[in-house]
Amino acid sequence: MTGRLTVLGLGPGASALLTPEAAAALEAASDLVGYAPYLDRVPERPGQRRHASDNRVELDRARHALALAEAGARVAVVSGGDPGVFAMASAVFEAIEQGPAAWRALDVAVLPGISAMFAAAARLGAPLGHDFCAISLSDNLKPWDVVERRLRAAAGAGFVIALYNPASRARPWQLGAAFALLREVLPGETPVAFATAVTRPDERIELARLDAADPARVDMRTLVLVGSAATRRIGRDGGGAWLYTPRRA
Amino acid sequence: MTGRLTVLGLGPGASALLTPEAAAALEAASDLVGYAPYLDRVPERPGQRRHASDNRVELDRARHALALAEAGARVAVVSGGDPGVFAMASAVFEAIEQGPAAWRALDVAVLPGISAMFAAAARLGAPLGHDFCAISLSDNLKPWDVVERRLRAAAGAGFVIALYNPASRARPWQLGAAFALLREVLPGETPVAFATAVTRPDERIELARLDAADPARVDMRTLVLVGSAATRRIGRDGGGAWLYTPRRA
Repeated sequence: MTGRLTVLGLGPGASALLTPEAAAALEAASDLVGYAPYLDRVPERPGQRRHASDNRVELDRARHALALAEAGARVAVVSGGDPGVFAMASAVFEAIEQGPAAWRALDVAVLPGISAMFAAAARLGAPLGHDFCAISLSDNLKPWDVVERRLRAAAGAGFVIALYNPASRARPWQLGAAFALLREVLPGETPVAFATAVTRPDERIELARLDAADPARVDMRTLVLVGSAATRRIGRDGGGAWLYTPRRA
Repeated sequence: MTGRLTVLGLGPGASALLTPEAAAALEAASDLVGYAPYLDRVPERPGQRRHASDNRVELDRARHALALAEAGARVAVVSGGDPGVFAMASAVFEAIEQGPAAWRALDVAVLPGISAMFAAAARLGAPLGHDFCAISLSDNLKPWDVVERRLRAAAGAGFVIALYNPASRARPWQLGAAFALLREVLPGETPVAFATAVTRPDERIELARLDAADPARVDMRTLVLVGSAATRRIGRDGGGAWLYTPRRA
């Protein structure tokens, strides 16, 4: 019996954003491995085993999935969003590189998903309309000065910036520090968007200016988008606004 | 009668990567507007009108779509990949901002899609495993010195870089110039991937080192990924390799 390991993304939440490819992989799996809240989004299937874990043990979770596949299971490693964006795919390959030679011979596939940044951008209009970047504000795995260097480089060169992992209970100050740094580089009126739980029933989209952006608006499910100096706000009848960044910026 | 304008992405090519949300919008549309090769991917539907156009008239195409919606049509503007990533969404909002006030009152929705960069990354392993950026090499709409500044900033700060629009008949030298600039900043062994027509029948994935990367490998359907100094290559039994960028990089 030959195992298989598939690393897939569920998208931001709504099942209408789960790709048919990922849905088929979920159906075909004998074992699901993932952070518990993501597994909770997948309907139960008779005979399918579930291995739910905490959020801060990615490498252990990857090794567990690889060991199951080596033993012959058809394993789906379940991420939110896209599995290659601050999610499980990198941990799986890190485990393969460090693991037994047999893991390099496994049938491994990564299936893309709708990332939080693109789902949030779609709700807002077209804020990523020109060059953009994604930065994780978590300093669990990299030093904070690396984050600062990247924020400064990206804002200085005119990238629109998507901030992943803006805050958690253990990392309360990073987003405020990031805003303070960005205010040194970007105009005060630069649009900032807080997109929380996008496409889920409790979705919340809030707009601010950089000089008034309040870090306390975020939770673990928030993606923060910071425009470039070229990003524009179009007021809508009824109060809301669209954000877009012109292609020529 | 109230019109509606939906801007959607078909994903990179395979129908298994078209979201159910976008598929439903294609079904519900009275009019499809888009670049001809994208419309060719959508099955014909009786009674549905198609407005195919050339690739270099995004703003005209956006205005045409908005005028149809204003007149009561249910319009789907069709992009490849994700509509917010170097595609039609930004042109639509640019047209709205410059257009008649009635366009701001229209029912407009953007539906995300699987972008070429995430589909390519999935095929390669997990090259976008840490902070990354996307840069269009087209200087049709922005000056080349802006592109150079962004390439230098991104490579210098350790971002993995996805290069969109690497070349066309009218833009033959830009990718070579980009590689030359990146070689000044990044080690010669930095992995580069050429991902052409990802998920389509003629998909082609090629790996190189930055110091030997040949710009002639690309066509209009190629996405180029340039690793950071931390991006790693894992050799596979049988010859291929995975690329991944460790989360702690």
